[in-house]
Amino acid sequence: MQFEGSHILSVNQLDLDSINTIFNIANKMTPYALREKRTKVLEGAILGNLFFEPSTRTRVSFGCAFNLLGGHVRETTGMASSSLSKGESLYDTARVLSTYSDVIAMRHPDAYSVKEFAEGSRVPVINGGDGPNEHPTQALLDLFTIKKELSHSGMGIDGMHIAMVGDLKYGRTVHSLSRLLCMHKDIQFTLISPSELAMPDYVIADIENAGHKITITEQLEGNLHQADILYLTRIQEERFPSQEEANKYRGKFRLNHNIYTQHCKSNTVIMHPLPRDSRAQANELDNDLNSHPSLAIFRQADNGLLIRMALFALTLGVENQLEKYECPVNWYSRKADR
Amino acid sequence: MQFEGSHILSVNQLDLDSINTIFNIANKMTPYALREKRTKVLEGAILGNLFFEPSTRTRVSFGCAFNLLGGHVRETTGMASSSLSKGESLYDTARVLSTYSDVIAMRHPDAYSVKEFAEGSRVPVINGGDGPNEHPTQALLDLFTIKKELSHSGMGIDGMHIAMVGDLKYGRTVHSLSRLLCMHKDIQFTLISPSELAMPDYVIADIENAGHKITITEQLEGNLHQADILYLTRIQEERFPSQEEANKYRGKFRLNHNIYTQHCKSNTVIMHPLPRDSRAQANELDNDLNSHPSLAIFRQADNGLLIRMALFALTLGVENQLEKYECPVNWYSRKADR
Amino acid sequence: MQFEGSHILSVNQLDLDSINTIFNIANKMTPYALREKRTKVLEGAILGNLFFEPSTRTRVSFGCAFNLLGGHVRETTGMASSSLSKGESLYDTARVLSTYSDVIAMRHPDAYSVKEFAEGSRVPVINGGDGPNEHPTQALLDLFTIKKELSHSGMGIDGMHIAMVGDLKYGRTVHSLSRLLCMHKDIQFTLISPSELAMPDYVIADIENAGHKITITEQLEGNLHQADILYLTRIQEERFPSQEEANKYRGKFRLNHNIYTQHCKSNTVIMHPLPRDSRAQANELDNDLNSHPSLAIFRQADNGLLIRMALFALTLGVENQLEKYECPVNWYSRKADR
Repeated sequence: MQFEGSHILSVNQLDLDSINTIFNIANKMTPYALREKRTKVLEGAILGNLFFEPSTRTRVSFGCAFNLLGGHVRETTGMASSSLSKGESLYDTARVLSTYSDVIAMRHPDAYSVKEFAEGSRVPVINGGDGPNEHPTQALLDLFTIKKELSHSGMGIDGMHIAMVGDLKYGRTVHSLSRLLCMHKDIQFTLISPSELAMPDYVIADIENAGHKITITEQLEGNLHQADILYLTRIQEERFPSQEEANKYRGKFRLNHNIYTQHCKSNTVIMHPLPRDSRAQANELDNDLNSHPSLAIFRQADNGLLIRMALFALTLGVENQLEKYECPVNWYSRKADR
Repeated sequence: MQFEGSHILSVNQLDLDSINTIFNIANKMTPYALREKRTKVLEGAILGNLFFEPSTRTRVSFGCAFNLLGGHVRETTGMASSSLSKGESLYDTARVLSTYSDVIAMRHPDAYSVKEFAEGSRVPVINGGDGPNEHPTQALLDLFTIKKELSHSGMGIDGMHIAMVGDLKYGRTVHSLSRLLCMHKDIQFTLISPSELAMPDYVIADIENAGHKITITEQLEGNLHQADILYLTRIQEERFPSQEEANKYRGKFRLNHNIYTQHCKSNTVIMHPLPRDSRAQANELDNDLNSHPSLAIFRQADNGLLIRMALFALTLGVENQLEKYECPVNWYSRKADR
Repeated sequence: MQFEGSHILSVNQLDLDSINTIFNIANKMTPYALREKRTKVLEGAILGNLFFEPSTRTRVSFGCAFNLLGGHVRETTGMASSSLSKGESLYDTARVLSTYSDVIAMRHPDAYSVKEFAEGSRVPVINGGDGPNEHPTQALLDLFTIKKELSHSGMGIDGMHIAMVGDLKYGRTVHSLSRLLCMHKDIQFTLISPSELAMPDYVIADIENAGHKITITEQLEGNLHQADILYLTRIQEERFPSQEEANKYRGKFRLNHNIYTQHCKSNTVIMHPLPRDSRAQANELDNDLNSHPSLAIFRQADNGLLIRMALFALTLGVENQLEKYECPVNWYSRKADR
């Protein structure tokens, strides 16, 4: 696809070539994110960071990505403080707010709202999550993480084995990731969830039509030992009709150091879209894996920054000017731990 | 008036000369707002953008205007997160917060609060709306828009015909705009509203004392055919004692493509302070005029940016240094549609 | 202490040498804060300004301090908009958010939460107040103010007399300030409060162990005439079991022009951590002292900016590069009134 001046609304816009372009630019962003040097390529540009639904991590990641390229960020958070609550159409909001920036990142609780907004916008709009529909930068950072993590063991995405665990019905991230994986070859999917929260049929059909293999099960134990990637998502107990129903699954889709050691290969990569619930009563991913080298959950967040930097550079057409505007970093910077 | 170091609190401070100065600088801002080039004239300066009452559009417009001149923006939104709710005086708030910036834009729900704040401030304060009292940058952008729009047909403000429609009693924008129009000559005002929401007597007296002509009516049809400018404002149904009373006026002060074609000249400029209610049950300005070339409502928002940039440049005394700090824009930018 | 790359969590980390280092750098910041010139030493750096508890003044002060050094600020306010409300641990929040900035300033309602966060952070964290525990930048700006104010009369901190008035039990600022004063010599403390709100025993023990003299009283009148510094804090009426109990103390710990003139030396410095309640029914520090030259409360806020600039420069290791990145200020700037 042609990135310059385009909206990024859905993973469906992307083919393998576009994805590789994004990943190549994301890799080029690494030294800037690690503060080995910096670039002022977007100095003077303005990001409109419109978060009509709260999301600290995604909002700050977009804003920081833009600052890392040298630009300004103007932010709007919440519906209450917005004219949308007075009956203003997304078209009007877009016509007005898009005058105030060079590119927009937007999150909104309603499906397809970002697309509707984009139709009124005079500048490129990047979807930061439109309710139950899509969160394309999350899908891209997940795929990018898989690619990077597997490359350490000399593997690629083609031919890999991924286990997806937890809420596969409402988990937007596993749907979008599956769609991106369908563009690749010979993947083995193991889908592990309570039957009430099983992967939707249309996603399964897509996977099968793409020629991949699927195993569907409610059982974590015994189904992880061949997985190269283990992608966990949270089971929200309020999805069940009663607490009793929810209790049936307590602890059955959780991962901790013991379960990992017993049931996984020694280098199975652990992923999770975050946030995870770390309270004692939670049942997803225990803190006792925090220092395990295969825990990639924080590297996912790091990669999200690179992906968002790449998308800003591409939609604003500056991806080949990064080096021209480089400067040294003259302050203390953390050492890389990736 | 002397702009450098001054507060901008009310349209009453301004004479025709001052207004022309603002408009001249606003015109100079156009190429920066359109991203044909940029200026770093306020690089390193800090705007304190204090919105004690929510207003997405005005807040972002002020912030973006400052970023477009190269400056930083520090923002505060809402009362809850403010010491004002603990009984702090506006004087104290101003003394402290004005240490933290070079200029302040402020909105507050209480009349004259911005003036009170300005008395404690050590830096220039620009009124971004003080409740029922004033919103001077809106009045200036409205007048600036009228001037620009009429110039396309070779007209000026002197001698024009403006129809103001809707809630003329509580509509702060029409009061301030009227005051600015009173400085001009031979204007024909047609004031169209329910009698409960008629223009206040003191505004009418001002208009008459300035030698302008006024027609007052409750009837939209038949009273628009000579208007050069049609300024619509929303009728808030909660202003009426009962829903029954409100219903009497449903649809009587609304504009759509059909009404426009039937009752207006072919080039009557349509203005509205926004936001407008675009829901089906709303009764102000229909979406079917969205692509009409005479619909100036989004150009008003664009002009707001220019006016605010001009006021920052003037109060900080950099209006003659814009070109000295110019740089090229090296990223993708939207094409102008004004 | 070694500042570069370190967290600033508590006044207990600091010895007299470290404090002098901070104060020396704070003094160097004065011309930048007064806009006599500016520095771009942190151009391109990003502050994560995380205010999980609202505090307009402290938040804006940190943000502005960073802008004054040339850096970008990404801000998060409130708990609701944060993943913390979904059960995310401070460790996870820190691991992720610290990827997005070069240094973090953080306020949080829970004691020791900032320390817990710092353990997961990859970048230096500065405590902006962790509930009832500490607010080290406030303690530092208070001590810095005392030093500067006394120097005008040729005095130093050693040998001075300070009266602390009001709520000495819950007032976090007087506890931290006392700790810093304990590092100095021969100080006379006069502690004036209702007995229900008396200074905690462990603070009194620290003061006595440091060899200072203490007078404890419930009586303002007659106990102020030797004080060089008068440090007022607000008595929150909700601390008392009933309104009747609270009423017993109404007006007994208040300062106004009359009381000051009658009971204090002519140059006793008046301090208050702000905000103060300026409503008619309030009982702390009257507005009739607003123009008194000994009222240092707004200079405290000004000094807070210098202290925070110094801490950013020190933790990021740029304190010796300020001049290298200097530029002139080309816009209107207020005249100094300190």
